[in-house]
Amino acid sequence: QVTAPVPAVAKELHSYSSRALLPGIHPLASRLLNLMEKKTTNLCLSADVTNSEEILQLAEELGPSICMLKTHVDILSDFTPEVSSRLRAIADKHQFLLFEDRKFADIGHTVKQQYEGGIYRISSWSDVVNVHAVPGPGVVQGLREASLALGRGCLVIAEMSSQGTLASGGYTKAAVSLAEQFPDVVFGFISGSRVSERPELLHVSPGVQLQAGGDDLGQQYQSPHDIITKKGSDIIIVGRGILSAGNRLEVAELYRAAGWEAYLARLKAGQAQT
Amino acid sequence: QVTAPVPAVAKELHSYSSRALLPGIHPLASRLLNLMEKKTTNLCLSADVTNSEEILQLAEELGPSICMLKTHVDILSDFTPEVSSRLRAIADKHQFLLFEDRKFADIGHTVKQQYEGGIYRISSWSDVVNVHAVPGPGVVQGLREASLALGRGCLVIAEMSSQGTLASGGYTKAAVSLAEQFPDVVFGFISGSRVSERPELLHVSPGVQLQAGGDDLGQQYQSPHDIITKKGSDIIIVGRGILSAGNRLEVAELYRAAGWEAYLARLKAGQAQT
Repeated sequence: QVTAPVPAVAKELHSYSSRALLPGIHPLASRLLNLMEKKTTNLCLSADVTNSEEILQLAEELGPSICMLKTHVDILSDFTPEVSSRLRAIADKHQFLLFEDRKFADIGHTVKQQYEGGIYRISSWSDVVNVHAVPGPGVVQGLREASLALGRGCLVIAEMSSQGTLASGGYTKAAVSLAEQFPDVVFGFISGSRVSERPELLHVSPGVQLQAGGDDLGQQYQSPHDIITKKGSDIIIVGRGILSAGNRLEVAELYRAAGWEAYLARLKAGQAQT
Repeated sequence: QVTAPVPAVAKELHSYSSRALLPGIHPLASRLLNLMEKKTTNLCLSADVTNSEEILQLAEELGPSICMLKTHVDILSDFTPEVSSRLRAIADKHQFLLFEDRKFADIGHTVKQQYEGGIYRISSWSDVVNVHAVPGPGVVQGLREASLALGRGCLVIAEMSSQGTLASGGYTKAAVSLAEQFPDVVFGFISGSRVSERPELLHVSPGVQLQAGGDDLGQQYQSPHDIITKKGSDIIIVGRGILSAGNRLEVAELYRAAGWEAYLARLKAGQAQT
């Protein structure tokens, strides 16, 4: 795969560690890029399990292989505040970020309460959250105060991996423009490809599997190599590709290696060009 | 207000009770239209409070004045499964529907788990939920199985009341088309105006206050009269207009009366035309 062609859009991107030093980069993005380089991983595990002990075990076992753990705490049937504080401790120990995939999509007044309050108190433990652009700027403004106070960050969903998504064309452009308006809160995108030219913004891509395909509810998959080299994304999110494996750690390592090799191939192509 | 002009789009709409009898209407829409006519109310209370006892008290006290109670269970700081079962009992007693304003916006596989599982088990107690159209058809397909099994229904968010929303133009059209594809699950819209010509689909409008204006996080308000007569919507959602009042019941009754008078004015205008 290392010899596959790398398009110009991806070649312009420098190393994760050099991007961590860009002026005006969000502190959380800088921290993430540095730990990616240090741990040689651009793999985010999507830990979509429904049992708290299982998610804690996954975090503990796969922690060294990943740069970020993506959660849906609202599908845990036995969530307690102890779960999020134990997750936080494991993330700090193995140096990965926590990313609650909440997809905030309400007016600012409500988003503020959903982020800071309720049973989950997301802002108290999750480094990263994401928002849909459809409500307009209020959705980011609702997060802003807590995000700044606690050193958190936010990703704007610019594209989705599901069939028939409306997040394309003009919608994606508007999402990019929304993200670029709030550099102190937003440090990147959820997208299937590079949607912004700014190297300080990170691109995080769901819908990744080593085997192409989909599920019966509209999900569609791309390979780590394509996502990183052809599409110019920075981080691969893998869920069922790892969770459905007999040996999850072994398969997570396959994904970590595939994502990292793709990144090295992109770097090499960029150096050959300059 | 009764003498204000009623545009043609709204005049075509017949009474709630006659629409309840339309062939192919969703059973939940039919039940809702009938209870609206019986209780003479098109008011949905947005119960955005953070304390469980307060929401239960609101439901009990304002229940007779409303057709639907809109909740955000994820902002309740002390939620337990007992809260949702007590809400369910109060809703059955006072004959209103429960509407968890979850704004599902993920891929189908995740939405299914968020709807049926987790601490909240939303499908087990909430009659109505809503979805954003941005993920594409999978977001409705993820709800479908549980929705059909339990007799629930779903509203598609076609427009939002927040400043700079992307839910307009082509996005709104695509949301309408998504809704019309799943008549066994979707029975209407969240929108600021009538977006579909099909009389069996209900339009439910947020951002309503007797006084025009907004908040500092991008929310914008319209009056009950404008929403029902000029915009052709069917149900008004009122939150802060009621919650911030000294006497919530008294003010809820003002909104109920204003919404109902607007509905009668629309009916009268329609009859004059035919």
